[in-house]
Amino acid sequence: MSILVVGSVAFDSVETPFGKAEEVLGGSATYFSTSASYFTQVSLVAVVGEDFPEEHVDNLKKRGIDTEGLKKVPGKTFRWKGRYGYDLNQAHTLETNLNVFSAFDPVIPERYRDLPYVFLANIDPELQWKVLDQVRKPRLIACDTMNFWIEGKPDALRKLLKRVEVFVINEAEAREFAGESSLVKAARKIMEDGPRILIIKRGEYGALMFSEKSVFSAPAYPLENIFDPTGAGDSFAGGVMGYLANTGDLREDNIRRAIIFGSVMASFNVEAFSLSKLSSLSFDEIRARYSEFKRLTNFEDI
Amino acid sequence: MSILVVGSVAFDSVETPFGKAEEVLGGSATYFSTSASYFTQVSLVAVVGEDFPEEHVDNLKKRGIDTEGLKKVPGKTFRWKGRYGYDLNQAHTLETNLNVFSAFDPVIPERYRDLPYVFLANIDPELQWKVLDQVRKPRLIACDTMNFWIEGKPDALRKLLKRVEVFVINEAEAREFAGESSLVKAARKIMEDGPRILIIKRGEYGALMFSEKSVFSAPAYPLENIFDPTGAGDSFAGGVMGYLANTGDLREDNIRRAIIFGSVMASFNVEAFSLSKLSSLSFDEIRARYSEFKRLTNFEDI
Repeated sequence: MSILVVGSVAFDSVETPFGKAEEVLGGSATYFSTSASYFTQVSLVAVVGEDFPEEHVDNLKKRGIDTEGLKKVPGKTFRWKGRYGYDLNQAHTLETNLNVFSAFDPVIPERYRDLPYVFLANIDPELQWKVLDQVRKPRLIACDTMNFWIEGKPDALRKLLKRVEVFVINEAEAREFAGESSLVKAARKIMEDGPRILIIKRGEYGALMFSEKSVFSAPAYPLENIFDPTGAGDSFAGGVMGYLANTGDLREDNIRRAIIFGSVMASFNVEAFSLSKLSSLSFDEIRARYSEFKRLTNFEDI
Repeated sequence: MSILVVGSVAFDSVETPFGKAEEVLGGSATYFSTSASYFTQVSLVAVVGEDFPEEHVDNLKKRGIDTEGLKKVPGKTFRWKGRYGYDLNQAHTLETNLNVFSAFDPVIPERYRDLPYVFLANIDPELQWKVLDQVRKPRLIACDTMNFWIEGKPDALRKLLKRVEVFVINEAEAREFAGESSLVKAARKIMEDGPRILIIKRGEYGALMFSEKSVFSAPAYPLENIFDPTGAGDSFAGGVMGYLANTGDLREDNIRRAIIFGSVMASFNVEAFSLSKLSSLSFDEIRARYSEFKRLTNFEDI
């Protein structure tokens, strides 16, 4: 089954201890849809400026991504400039130029409105709300956010979460949003507001998934080098949603598998700048790394 | 089979966001031996002052720990005072009074010299070396250290590691010791110096075990409250060594199980100040939490 994703498409300039990349393709919706495209068909809603090369659109199309919802408008594409130090869990934003993204008011193409899987990438929670008003038959709604919205629009976010089933958030943000230093307590508090499934991203430490009944701990893949963490969270979400949409199975066992696929996709993504690795994988590589996650975590009963 | 442990026995004064404890029993060898005592017989070598109450010695004996090697000498017992903020991974030392521990020169009682499992808790690597000169038939030698020795005696530590099979170290210390920000590279570099098994402790993120052939990622148990992290690393090591000594099986599958038992023991330890929880467990509780680790990490093949 297909996924609708609404988010950003951007140009990133990134410096890491391993090198730098200037004005390369980025954005939450780009990473998400590229990652999810290995599992299912994705329809993308985002906005870019007139400076956005058709070549990038063609590359998304080649991955089977429906780009009817990628609107080109007068002005410049969203640009982000950031740096990572040796602590690759923490991005330092050097510059943000929202450009055409500042007036983004997502209109969901008619053809997309019945799509069963919806991913609201990190945008203003009021816009995320508006997206949900336009979809008609969502089977699963997932969303991401960031500290900017947690601090700026906490009430809008709380209201939105009542309509969301899977909420993806990073560890520090979960603590901040709940006002709780204990991560377990923070998780339970956030889930009171709505989401049945809470996935907490912990960067190089993996992810924790909280459901009503249980907790699942997924490791990160121990890589020798993390070249560029940009887009790791969105590649992760793309793998999770992609696998869920592909299988149509929302039981906990399958959500656990989906989280491992998400972790697999994030691990590939950080091995190179921009989408260069994420966009050129084979499904055999993905499957092989899934098996490596199995070996990485496996221990026998006593 | 039995374990010889050489380390500290101390009085700790600890403040955490959840409360405080004054002059309670602590020390690396105390936590280690109490934890390991659930799995096997432990013989303890350490030094205390005349102020050390017999009651504490009796409690260790009640857990089957051989205290012939716990020497009482004129002077005061080692005291440590520390504080943890909300980031419970990081202890802030307020005061250290080595007292009788400053002249500690471990003499291994004759009866202990043939013990097959040896754990060198965190003391001066030159003293750890002297301990190894006194043991005759070690089947497995494991050791711990800390940043103080990594910075102060790196060469002595490197020399020692050639005689060590299992090295337990925390994440920041591994990076510092190897001079490598990539944890995977740091691990491989440290293993060139000797240890066949490297266990990297990551606090609330669990542990990573590196062997020649593979990596194993163990989660930490997601607790609502971590009351006092003091002794977590030594309780962990006690569970690992205790299970290995109990089973006598040093194959990788069994080392993985041992690491989960270590994680189980550490998770109990941090649920209360000092040894109050760690010293009053039943093996049923330990086994039940092992099973919870299994549920926490389990995912199916695709």
